Amino acid sequence: MSTSLNHVRIVGAGLIGTSIALALRSAGTSVTLLDADPRSEKLARDLMGSQGAIGEGFEDLCIVATPPFSIAKVISEELKRNPHLMVMDISSIKSKPVLEIRDTALPIGRFAPTHPMAGREVSGPESARGDLFQGRPWILSLDGVEPELSRKVKEVIRICGGVEVHRNIAEHDRAVALVSHLPQIVASLLAAQIESGVVDDLELSGAGLRDTTRIAESDPVLWGEILSGNSQALRPLLISLQNDLSAAIASLESADAMQALIERGNRGRAKIPGKHGGQARNYSYLAIVIDDKPGQLAAIIELCAKAKVNIEDLAIEHTPGQETGLITLAFSPDDAVVVAAQLAKEGWKVHPSR
Amino acid sequence: MSTSLNHVRIVGAGLIGTSIALALRSAGTSVTLLDADPRSEKLARDLMGSQGAIGEGFEDLCIVATPPFSIAKVISEELKRNPHLMVMDISSIKSKPVLEIRDTALPIGRFAPTHPMAGREVSGPESARGDLFQGRPWILSLDGVEPELSRKVKEVIRICGGVEVHRNIAEHDRAVALVSHLPQIVASLLAAQIESGVVDDLELSGAGLRDTTRIAESDPVLWGEILSGNSQALRPLLISLQNDLSAAIASLESADAMQALIERGNRGRAKIPGKHGGQARNYSYLAIVIDDKPGQLAAIIELCAKAKVNIEDLAIEHTPGQETGLITLAFSPDDAVVVAAQLAKEGWKVHPSR
Repeated sequence: MSTSLNHVRIVGAGLIGTSIALALRSAGTSVTLLDADPRSEKLARDLMGSQGAIGEGFEDLCIVATPPFSIAKVISEELKRNPHLMVMDISSIKSKPVLEIRDTALPIGRFAPTHPMAGREVSGPESARGDLFQGRPWILSLDGVEPELSRKVKEVIRICGGVEVHRNIAEHDRAVALVSHLPQIVASLLAAQIESGVVDDLELSGAGLRDTTRIAESDPVLWGEILSGNSQALRPLLISLQNDLSAAIASLESADAMQALIERGNRGRAKIPGKHGGQARNYSYLAIVIDDKPGQLAAIIELCAKAKVNIEDLAIEHTPGQETGLITLAFSPDDAVVVAAQLAKEGWKVHPSR
Repeated sequence: MSTSLNHVRIVGAGLIGTSIALALRSAGTSVTLLDADPRSEKLARDLMGSQGAIGEGFEDLCIVATPPFSIAKVISEELKRNPHLMVMDISSIKSKPVLEIRDTALPIGRFAPTHPMAGREVSGPESARGDLFQGRPWILSLDGVEPELSRKVKEVIRICGGVEVHRNIAEHDRAVALVSHLPQIVASLLAAQIESGVVDDLELSGAGLRDTTRIAESDPVLWGEILSGNSQALRPLLISLQNDLSAAIASLESADAMQALIERGNRGRAKIPGKHGGQARNYSYLAIVIDDKPGQLAAIIELCAKAKVNIEDLAIEHTPGQETGLITLAFSPDDAVVVAAQLAKEGWKVHPSR
C-alpha cells in the first residue's frame, strides 16, 4: 500500500497508538513512537521492530494517542519542538480536549479531532494489532480543520482500514455517551455489586451475568478520564437511568410493572444494529452438543465449509462439572436448513432454534 | 438409560417443561405434557412424537413447569384428579410459590422445590432440547420433602443430565437475585435507555453494548413474575445499585471517583467463575483476521485439531461495512504458543494477546 505520509510521530504507545503505528509501518511510513512510560515505549518499539527510532526530523503529522486529559499538555510540549505541528487525536471524548487545546498556542485548524471506535476491554501495547481498525467506524470532526491536515487524517484512516464517519464534536460526545460510556458505567456498577457477593452464590453464575459484566474489565485510569471528561453528555442518560431504576424499585412487587420494563428493554435491544453495521439481521441458530475435546468443532466447521454456507456467528458454551460443550452457529434461515439436515444426517446432536 | 419413572405428567410446555419431557422420553419414561395454550401444547407434542397422549392413568410424578404465579393454582386443580399427587416445580423463584402452596390441600412434604439453571433468552417449546440441562446446575431444596419424592426428583435430574446443587429456599432466592435477577433488570434498564436513542448514534454501537444488553431480549411475562416474585431478595441489591448510581452521578466530574468505580467493577468481575464452574481460568487469546466467507474458519479450526490443542473459547467479530472478520480463539498458554507459531507459518494474520 503506497502512501503520501513519509514520517508520522505518535505520542502514546497504548493499544490505539501502537496499533496505528503498526498499520502505518506496514504501509511504509516511518514512525516515531513515544510514551511517558518507558516500559510501554520499549514494548511498543519491540513490536515495531527497528523502525521506532527517535529524531528523524519533522514529521508530516503528529498523532496524540495519550489519555484524553493529557492531550493539551502533550501538544504544548510538541509545539516547542515543531512550531509547524499538525495534530490528530484518537480520544474517546472530544468537547473537553478541544476546549483545552484552545488554550495552547496551536492554531485550532491544525488540530483534527478523531476517534477510532476500536476499543477493547484489554489495553496497552501488548494488545495492539495493525488491523485493529479494519472495517471499524473512525469518527472524525473536520469542521474548520485545514485542508492539508484533513487529507493527512483521511490517509491515516485509509491505511488503518477504518471507515470514515463524520460527526461534529457535540454529536460525537452524545453518541458515545449512549453507546459506549453508559454501558461501561452500567456494567461496572453491576460488577461492583458482585464484589461483596457470597462465593457460593457466585458459583451459580451463568452466561447472562458474564456477558453483562464483560466490559467491567476495562482500564480504570483511562475510563476514569473518559467518563468524567464526558460528564455533560453522560449526566442526562444517568439521570434517566436513575429515574427508571427508582421507578422499578418502587413498583418491584408489580408483575405488570416489571413486565413493562422487560418489554421496554426488548424494544431498546431490537434497535441495536447487528454485524456489518446494518440493522439486526434475522439469523437462524443451530445448537449442537459436542464433547469438549479437539476435533469436534473442526468436523462441524468443515461440514459447513463443504456445504458452502457462511457461518454468521458462532458461540461456544461450556458446561460446569462436565466435559461437554454446546456450540451455537448462526446462519441465514436458508443455510440453517441445509446445515441442520446435513449435521443430523451425519449423526450430530443438532437442535435448530426458531 | 433405564429409569424407575414409568409415567410423568408435566404441566407447562414452555422451554423447561418441554426440554424435561424430551429428556424423560429419551430415557423411556412415558410423558403426558399439557399446556393452557393449545399452540404450545401441540407444538411440544409434535416435538415429542407419538408419546404425548393424555390419560395414561396416575403418574409417578407431576412436574409443574408453569410460570411461578400459577403453580399453586395448577396444584389445586391437579389434586382433584389425583389426591396422591407428588409435585416438583422448576421455577426461578422459591419463597413465594412455597408460601402459596401451603394454602392448597397438598401436604408440604409432597412438594419439592427445584430450579434447573438453564434459562435462555429464548423461550417456548420451539427452543426446547432434551440436553438443555446437561451439566448445568439444578438447584433443589429437599428439607422436609418425603423420601420417595426426593428419590424421584433426583432421578429426573439424573436423566436430564443436571448437576445437583442443594440450597434451602432462602439461599436459593438470595443467590438467583444476585447472579440472575439483578443482571436481568440492569440489562433491561440499559436497553430501555436505548429505546429513545437517535438511530445515527446507535449505528456506532459495538460489542460492548451488544453484550451488555443481550439478556434484555428475555420473555416479558415470565420475567415480570420472576422479578416481582423475588422482590424481597432483589430489593436490597437494587437499593445498593441505586446508592452507587447516585454516588456516581454526584461525582461524575471526578476522574478519581470514576476510576474507583471502574476498579470496583474490575474486582467484582474477577469474582465471577468462568467455564466448567470453576474459578476463572487464565487463557491466552489469539486474534486472527479472516475474510468473511466459507472455508476460512474451517481451515483454522482444522489446523487446531491437527495440532491436538483444545480450543477453550471462540468468538467471531464482524466488522461494519467490510467483508472481513476477526476470530479470537482462547487456549491454555502453552497451546496458544503452539497454535500461534503454526498459524503464522501457514500465512495467517495471527495476533497473540497478552
